[in-house]
Amino acid sequence: VKPGIPIKSVAIIGPGLLGGSLALALAGGSRCAVRVWGRRPEVVAQLRLRCPSAVASTDIETAVAGADLVVLCTPVGIMAGLAERLRPALAPGAVVTDTGSVKGAIVEELEPLLGGGARFVGSHPMAGGDQVGLQHARADLFHDAACIVTPTPRTDAATVEKVSAFWTSLGCRVFHLPPGIHDRAIALVSHLPHITAAALVRAAAGPDAPGALDLVGPGFRDSTRIAMGPVPMWDEILLQNRDAVLAAIRSLRSHLDQVETALSQKTSLAGILADARETRLRLQRATLK
Amino acid sequence: VKPGIPIKSVAIIGPGLLGGSLALALAGGSRCAVRVWGRRPEVVAQLRLRCPSAVASTDIETAVAGADLVVLCTPVGIMAGLAERLRPALAPGAVVTDTGSVKGAIVEELEPLLGGGARFVGSHPMAGGDQVGLQHARADLFHDAACIVTPTPRTDAATVEKVSAFWTSLGCRVFHLPPGIHDRAIALVSHLPHITAAALVRAAAGPDAPGALDLVGPGFRDSTRIAMGPVPMWDEILLQNRDAVLAAIRSLRSHLDQVETALSQKTSLAGILADARETRLRLQRATLK
Repeated sequence: VKPGIPIKSVAIIGPGLLGGSLALALAGGSRCAVRVWGRRPEVVAQLRLRCPSAVASTDIETAVAGADLVVLCTPVGIMAGLAERLRPALAPGAVVTDTGSVKGAIVEELEPLLGGGARFVGSHPMAGGDQVGLQHARADLFHDAACIVTPTPRTDAATVEKVSAFWTSLGCRVFHLPPGIHDRAIALVSHLPHITAAALVRAAAGPDAPGALDLVGPGFRDSTRIAMGPVPMWDEILLQNRDAVLAAIRSLRSHLDQVETALSQKTSLAGILADARETRLRLQRATLK
Repeated sequence: VKPGIPIKSVAIIGPGLLGGSLALALAGGSRCAVRVWGRRPEVVAQLRLRCPSAVASTDIETAVAGADLVVLCTPVGIMAGLAERLRPALAPGAVVTDTGSVKGAIVEELEPLLGGGARFVGSHPMAGGDQVGLQHARADLFHDAACIVTPTPRTDAATVEKVSAFWTSLGCRVFHLPPGIHDRAIALVSHLPHITAAALVRAAAGPDAPGALDLVGPGFRDSTRIAMGPVPMWDEILLQNRDAVLAAIRSLRSHLDQVETALSQKTSLAGILADARETRLRLQRATLK
């Protein structure tokens, strides 16, 4: 954690892939005291094994006691209920953030719950994968990931600074966006690819060409890897962000329209393909070190 | 090459990613004599450096002289012209195959050109990547790749057997499909994902959410990697296979429709997502060793 922004104790609510990785990263660097709440005793026990210096508990008040920063790492749907339970145990001045993939709805719920909004700001670290759970957690999960912090007009600057410094200290590239803008952007770069991957898999498995899936090469595998992600989590994310997701699907369709028109008219697709290729190459160069 | 199916000399037409990798694989295993034709002297010189045991030439008659098997590894659009040029130099009984991504049109062109169809059969090894050219060639490119051999009613069994044994000896999993069935299947598992990747990149780069591309995680990168593929090659492939590609886009749209309906009605997407996940996991298990 950045000097000048003292975070002495972090409470992690939910030791899954994200929360578990956070615990490993913080404990590994001896950056601060790590406290963890897990609902299931066997997961708490597993966390203690992987991260012996952490204080882990199934009691949420124990977990948040004395923490400067509380990070909600559970599914989005249960965050508000947990926030109500942990609120009475929060240390004075404690800051709360979360790691949910959709920000508009959750920020609207959590902000009034947690000290009138002054001590809460949303976060979304773009880290994860198609395999979830503590067993896949790793200390470097957040390294070089984008992390979007989503202040509102009610968020105070010190809270934004504290949470941003926290993610920066874990190796994230931090961006600040209002929750609604975040949701529109993430619909395009995360939620839409998930829907497309699922649709590609289902189209290839359909009756049009039996056995087609036997023939796939590395391109298909890469394009559809995310379709292996956890169903309940993605169901919740897509429904929570439905307006932005529907807009993203419409945008995808307009680009498919252009391809269909060119094919129907037997005209070259080179302009379309070159535009996509140039953009994707710029992204590749920007993310390669 | 499998015992009992003697291939003593292979001529490779076009030392790009596929042809170069073929030369490296064959020369490395000392499986047979390797002959290579390249149009550009500098590429022929580069091939000689990487594969000193090969006979490499810019003269196509020299390259095919005495070869039992000739493999066309050029862009699909120039294969027929090259076939006409090399035909007079073919050894008696020589078999010709190709590596094009679209089979219907090219098989229809090449079959009558090359000995009345008896000595030609199409092939499509599902190997490659977004980086092309001899500099990216590698001896293990074909290892564990699916390779579709596409006989027609006019192809004789010995030709199919010889070409299939050739690909098997390189580590491919060989399938036999009629050219039209191949094209429909490959439209779904290769051509459609390319179009989708391009559309995803263009949607994310559009005006709906400026800066969205700064936020991407590994999911977006994997889903769109193939959009970096070579534009002229993909333009040619998509136009050559336009009917099957248009049908594949329609199939994708019908799966997007289902997602949109569920989102519009605020009903769970779990059935759709679970179907895709199960299918993709089966594919993962089948391809993991």
